Amino acid sequence: MRKYHAEKMNKESAYPYQPWQISENEFLVENNHHNEAIFSLGNGYMGLRGTLEEDYAGSAETTTPGFYINGVYASEEIIYGEEAPSLPRRGQTMINLADWSEINLYINEEKFNMLQGHLTDYIRKLDLKKGVITRSLIWEDRQGRKVKIKIERLISFTRENIAAINYSVQPLNFSGKISIQSAVNGDVSNFYHLRNKKNAQVLQGKVEGKNGILLQKVKSTGFEIGFAVEHILKKMGGAEWKLESRESSNRIDWIFNLNAIEGEEYSISKIVAVNYAERNGEKPLEKARAELAKAAIIGYDGLSSEQTKFMQGYWEDVDIEIKGDPALQQAFRFNSFHILQSTGRNGRTSVAAKGLTGEYYEGHYFWDTETYILPFYIFQRPEVAKNLLLYRYYTLDKAKINARRMRLDGALYPWRTINGNEASGFFMGSTVQYHIDADIAYAIYLYYQVTGDQDFIDNYGLEIFVETARMWASRGSYIEKRNNKFCFNVVCGPDEYKPGVNNNAFTNYMAKFNLEIAAKMAREVKNRSGDKYAKMAERVNLDEDEVANWKQLAEDVYLPFDEELNIIPQDDSFLYKDPIHVDSIPVNELPLVKNWHPLIIWRYQVIKQADVILLMLLLGAKFSQKLKKANYDFYEPKTTHDSSLSPAIYSIIANEIGYAEQSFNYFMQTARLDLDDYNENAYQGVHTACMGGTWLALIQGFGGMRVENGNLYFNPTIPKKWDSYKFRIRYKKSQLEVEVNNKEVSYLLLGGEKINFTHRDQTINLSCSKLSKKIKI
Amino acid sequence: MRKYHAEKMNKESAYPYQPWQISENEFLVENNHHNEAIFSLGNGYMGLRGTLEEDYAGSAETTTPGFYINGVYASEEIIYGEEAPSLPRRGQTMINLADWSEINLYINEEKFNMLQGHLTDYIRKLDLKKGVITRSLIWEDRQGRKVKIKIERLISFTRENIAAINYSVQPLNFSGKISIQSAVNGDVSNFYHLRNKKNAQVLQGKVEGKNGILLQKVKSTGFEIGFAVEHILKKMGGAEWKLESRESSNRIDWIFNLNAIEGEEYSISKIVAVNYAERNGEKPLEKARAELAKAAIIGYDGLSSEQTKFMQGYWEDVDIEIKGDPALQQAFRFNSFHILQSTGRNGRTSVAAKGLTGEYYEGHYFWDTETYILPFYIFQRPEVAKNLLLYRYYTLDKAKINARRMRLDGALYPWRTINGNEASGFFMGSTVQYHIDADIAYAIYLYYQVTGDQDFIDNYGLEIFVETARMWASRGSYIEKRNNKFCFNVVCGPDEYKPGVNNNAFTNYMAKFNLEIAAKMAREVKNRSGDKYAKMAERVNLDEDEVANWKQLAEDVYLPFDEELNIIPQDDSFLYKDPIHVDSIPVNELPLVKNWHPLIIWRYQVIKQADVILLMLLLGAKFSQKLKKANYDFYEPKTTHDSSLSPAIYSIIANEIGYAEQSFNYFMQTARLDLDDYNENAYQGVHTACMGGTWLALIQGFGGMRVENGNLYFNPTIPKKWDSYKFRIRYKKSQLEVEVNNKEVSYLLLGGEKINFTHRDQTINLSCSKLSKKIKI
Repeated sequence: MRKYHAEKMNKESAYPYQPWQISENEFLVENNHHNEAIFSLGNGYMGLRGTLEEDYAGSAETTTPGFYINGVYASEEIIYGEEAPSLPRRGQTMINLADWSEINLYINEEKFNMLQGHLTDYIRKLDLKKGVITRSLIWEDRQGRKVKIKIERLISFTRENIAAINYSVQPLNFSGKISIQSAVNGDVSNFYHLRNKKNAQVLQGKVEGKNGILLQKVKSTGFEIGFAVEHILKKMGGAEWKLESRESSNRIDWIFNLNAIEGEEYSISKIVAVNYAERNGEKPLEKARAELAKAAIIGYDGLSSEQTKFMQGYWEDVDIEIKGDPALQQAFRFNSFHILQSTGRNGRTSVAAKGLTGEYYEGHYFWDTETYILPFYIFQRPEVAKNLLLYRYYTLDKAKINARRMRLDGALYPWRTINGNEASGFFMGSTVQYHIDADIAYAIYLYYQVTGDQDFIDNYGLEIFVETARMWASRGSYIEKRNNKFCFNVVCGPDEYKPGVNNNAFTNYMAKFNLEIAAKMAREVKNRSGDKYAKMAERVNLDEDEVANWKQLAEDVYLPFDEELNIIPQDDSFLYKDPIHVDSIPVNELPLVKNWHPLIIWRYQVIKQADVILLMLLLGAKFSQKLKKANYDFYEPKTTHDSSLSPAIYSIIANEIGYAEQSFNYFMQTARLDLDDYNENAYQGVHTACMGGTWLALIQGFGGMRVENGNLYFNPTIPKKWDSYKFRIRYKKSQLEVEVNNKEVSYLLLGGEKINFTHRDQTINLSCSKLSKKIKI
Repeated sequence: MRKYHAEKMNKESAYPYQPWQISENEFLVENNHHNEAIFSLGNGYMGLRGTLEEDYAGSAETTTPGFYINGVYASEEIIYGEEAPSLPRRGQTMINLADWSEINLYINEEKFNMLQGHLTDYIRKLDLKKGVITRSLIWEDRQGRKVKIKIERLISFTRENIAAINYSVQPLNFSGKISIQSAVNGDVSNFYHLRNKKNAQVLQGKVEGKNGILLQKVKSTGFEIGFAVEHILKKMGGAEWKLESRESSNRIDWIFNLNAIEGEEYSISKIVAVNYAERNGEKPLEKARAELAKAAIIGYDGLSSEQTKFMQGYWEDVDIEIKGDPALQQAFRFNSFHILQSTGRNGRTSVAAKGLTGEYYEGHYFWDTETYILPFYIFQRPEVAKNLLLYRYYTLDKAKINARRMRLDGALYPWRTINGNEASGFFMGSTVQYHIDADIAYAIYLYYQVTGDQDFIDNYGLEIFVETARMWASRGSYIEKRNNKFCFNVVCGPDEYKPGVNNNAFTNYMAKFNLEIAAKMAREVKNRSGDKYAKMAERVNLDEDEVANWKQLAEDVYLPFDEELNIIPQDDSFLYKDPIHVDSIPVNELPLVKNWHPLIIWRYQVIKQADVILLMLLLGAKFSQKLKKANYDFYEPKTTHDSSLSPAIYSIIANEIGYAEQSFNYFMQTARLDLDDYNENAYQGVHTACMGGTWLALIQGFGGMRVENGNLYFNPTIPKKWDSYKFRIRYKKSQLEVEVNNKEVSYLLLGGEKINFTHRDQTINLSCSKLSKKIKI
């Protein structure tokens, strides 16, 4: 492990290692910013950062409040340092919307604030089984009045429009006036990226008794967002809430007054429905009202029960048990929970780089989804995987326009986007990464191999194969000096420290794969579903010659290899770049992307993230163990892992070539990246792709799981430190549980049809549900 | 010649081919924009576009008024599409300052406007012998009143702060009221580049009788610009001017009323002094007043006489006679005049890409000065060359800071700048062109070889050699895969269509030259001026080891060569790029830089401008004729000449290898580029470097002049179409005239010391002034 990474990891966790929760027992302003990401809630549709309900009394540098809706963005003209033809003209930035979570408590006139008075018995926890965040504490105000406060909140996984807070307060040593002020605050701004940070305006705000509505509009894009709120008050011990309310131009407010009696517990539930409309004529407020009405019937407790039930089902599919390492056990559940929270599941949205937990990366979707997150779903919740792929299908037309921009045929998917248009203002960090097309094709084919979902291929997948293959066919050229091989010049692989190079190996191999798979699947669908194929072929103007040409091009793709070093050169120029060893770079200059001018980074043999090594994973069957080892040995000392996408992949290949210690170390660099904030930037939001990478590193690394040509393979190992680990996957029509300990592996067919797979060189058939096979390792 | 270029050249000239003037006999709105550049006036200190004195009545698209001072700029933060470390933070934009040329004529109340009423006898001309622009015409207003108007204007070459207009009017068929309104209008804006286009404000404006002052301030940079104006009225035939005047917040105005008598000629001279201050405490208005007072004494006629005298001296040094081609004859004089007008001669300014004739390129200085314009001065007016090189010396400290920005030692000159800081917002079109350092070193060495100016080297030049050599020493690396040669990765040569490549041949050869010359000159100065050397060495911390290291590095520089094609590959990847023939690109997609996304341009074997071919010129002695021919044959079909810096260089090398027709064609593409507006963009301003290139193409191309190791060589040829051409150069302490016709070359020592040079293989000595040598060709 790099010293740099060892140092970063050498810090105490802020959270005790508990199997099913993330908790803190002390409120510290210096942890607040980090906690806002860790205690974020979301359901793929919307997300709320882990801010406190009450007004925050810490400094502005320790908070970035945010409530976001996946797919709702502002847009500004991109200003370039210098113009060039065909650059993207407008950006897209996920916008910070009205904060519906505001609740302030007053004892008499003294406002509850954890940084004043006296705080005891504080505990905040994210309950991973229930999918809620609770905060409980005893607060003594400056007059010595004590209250016990319990707050629970959730964003519903079963009702995408619904969020709720249950707020209860109990005077412990006094009777007297207590007020609760609740609001939906539309006076919010973004903190980063946008030049005009205040991009949403409140069109309408109305208090209707203890209910109310607020309508926001994003000026630059026209999105309208409706909020409907209902407060449900619980009478207790004969006390009554009294209601005052007010409206102002940017917010709606309620004040609930109560003559509280010592020892009684009073509570208020705030149910919020949120809905948005992209087009005029849609009525987001009406929809929100309707959703609210349904949710209010079952109240907070009903919503909470639904949430728990949903989580039970989720954990049945995705839970991984790791015995002997409680830190890791916790991390896996935390990560799986955040992946769930981040994932748009409606076929029109995807997973942003920071999920819905922060503004960084502007809420953009990258190749991260297909390459790092999709396998998590393909093998565990394939119906979600399908919807994520559908997002790419629905934006195919925009990808075609993007290809024309670059004078290419077919479709070129954008490097970063929300709405399907390229939103990057720096083509050397975006458009040049043409491999996005192949990554998407690869993900679709993986989905198909694992699920066998022919309908998806026939109706959607093949068309993406076709248009991406067309892109590659027009992007490459036969180059005489390369023995007339089909080459791809001026591209960039996953390693963003080498943009604009020729014949990036990852790109060439993946392009070849894309061309091959398009040809293969075209034939397959033609044979299987002739009518559908014929219609599609007519619509997209596809003929046999074109399919044949892809096969030929795929055969002719130039596959770089260096005979002298016996490795795959990352690109044509990589071996000729200035030599450097990562350990020679001062730690305070890492990550390089934040410290060195790009032209300096580019001249060195220094790699940001797994590139050839990722290729060794994705198309692993094409490379011998020996070649993998040679490449690992060559590239590992040149890799800074300045991207959180990198260590997981190195861990997997280290595992495969028998580098157990490196494999474990790299694995540990990713699992608790956000929880323990190795990069000191988790406050910006969680690293969703890294979380997916951690899953890959366990299942594909230690589990040794691969899918090749529709066959499933395992080659499990287990780190010395652990007692056992256990995971479940879905494959075709079966669900399989794999448990590995120091002595043996057991495969258990949990349900579904019979399954065949390979354990190392051994073919295993499990033909009946509940049948298991134990094998010594 | 490319069809594209042939088509561009196939247009009638707007101006008759006159040897000493550029004139138009008809005023056409559609020519106005172009004429604003052609009829620009300037003296290197300030420049005025060729706008009319009276308010322009044509459409806004046909005019871009402008008055500029060399070195006076506004500054704005550069906004990037995406941020990266160490990018330049602020731009610099030459600012459009107050228009002092405004003069409107009223006959009774009818305002003179060439687009109304009836215009006859119109002629406008740029008089190249006198250095003035005159306009004369007869105008009949809508009431049938006729006036004869004669306007002459100049910007003084002998008094850098002084400009003047002489405006005369003669009623031809009536007596009555005539009014002349004159102004200095500070209500001006820039038209391009700046986001806040109105960047200069008027601090003070005051009419003082028929005189007045105006003070402008550039908000973003603090420059203050003072204008002082005096009107000199000529009484004639007993008529008297009457004066009204007014002031407003942004401008100062005068109105002169006259009861004119038919047939009498009345005239008014407007003398303007302009001065600027960069720092508080300097008093631009006082200086302007003082300069104005001196100029007013001699009046317009005196200024005009001075101008004529200056021009006589100028033409004695720089005039080139071409017999048998009047178009070319005119072009050469026009170009030499504009080079003069554009050149900052005070050691603190240089030559902007568009001179002082337009806002395009923001008034920035580029390598154009050293590579394309400096030879013109070195061989004709070396004292100006010295001042241009001094500009680089005075900005050396900023170049050092720029080197630190890029983590380099020594000094890295900015790619585009006014004040010495890098002003580019796109590093792939600027900083990546490290060769700027070597270009400057090359120019200094050429200056030294031709002038023998040891003082300049001892006091300034050597320090630039040292700091640029240091840059190269830190910029390169020994690369194992290149036989441990010293390589330069991620650079860009002159061909801007291939940025970010490794081992651009031009860059490597020029870096080697820079390292060699630094070592050589360090030794030479040490021997010659030990004390000076010792002081300099101490100040810049230079020791013998470092000098020795430069020699070693220079020896070790990797010099690319392709054995198979027997050419110098432009860079490591060039021969592997996608093949393309320039003729296959649709004409409407040229220039590519305006039509193709950069990533598309970069993938092809397509060249914007001479790169290896420029190397063949600058370091020509290193390459055989055969190699030059092979390279020309290889690169010529790949070159779009999308830069106006390109054809002249191809012309020179074509000449050298005996491609007479191509040489002539390329030559003709540059000589009248602005006059005949081949690129339809001359309205933006003249192409100063192209003008310098035209001179190079004649003297180095047809004249075959070279300087190598302090020796002067000629190898003249003459195009069939011409009868003869004649030019003069200064060399060491001599002035030599070279005349070439179809039969012979004659060399005449005009003055100064004896001179030795080589004609082809023949050594020629001219030992006495007026001695000449005729040789048959």
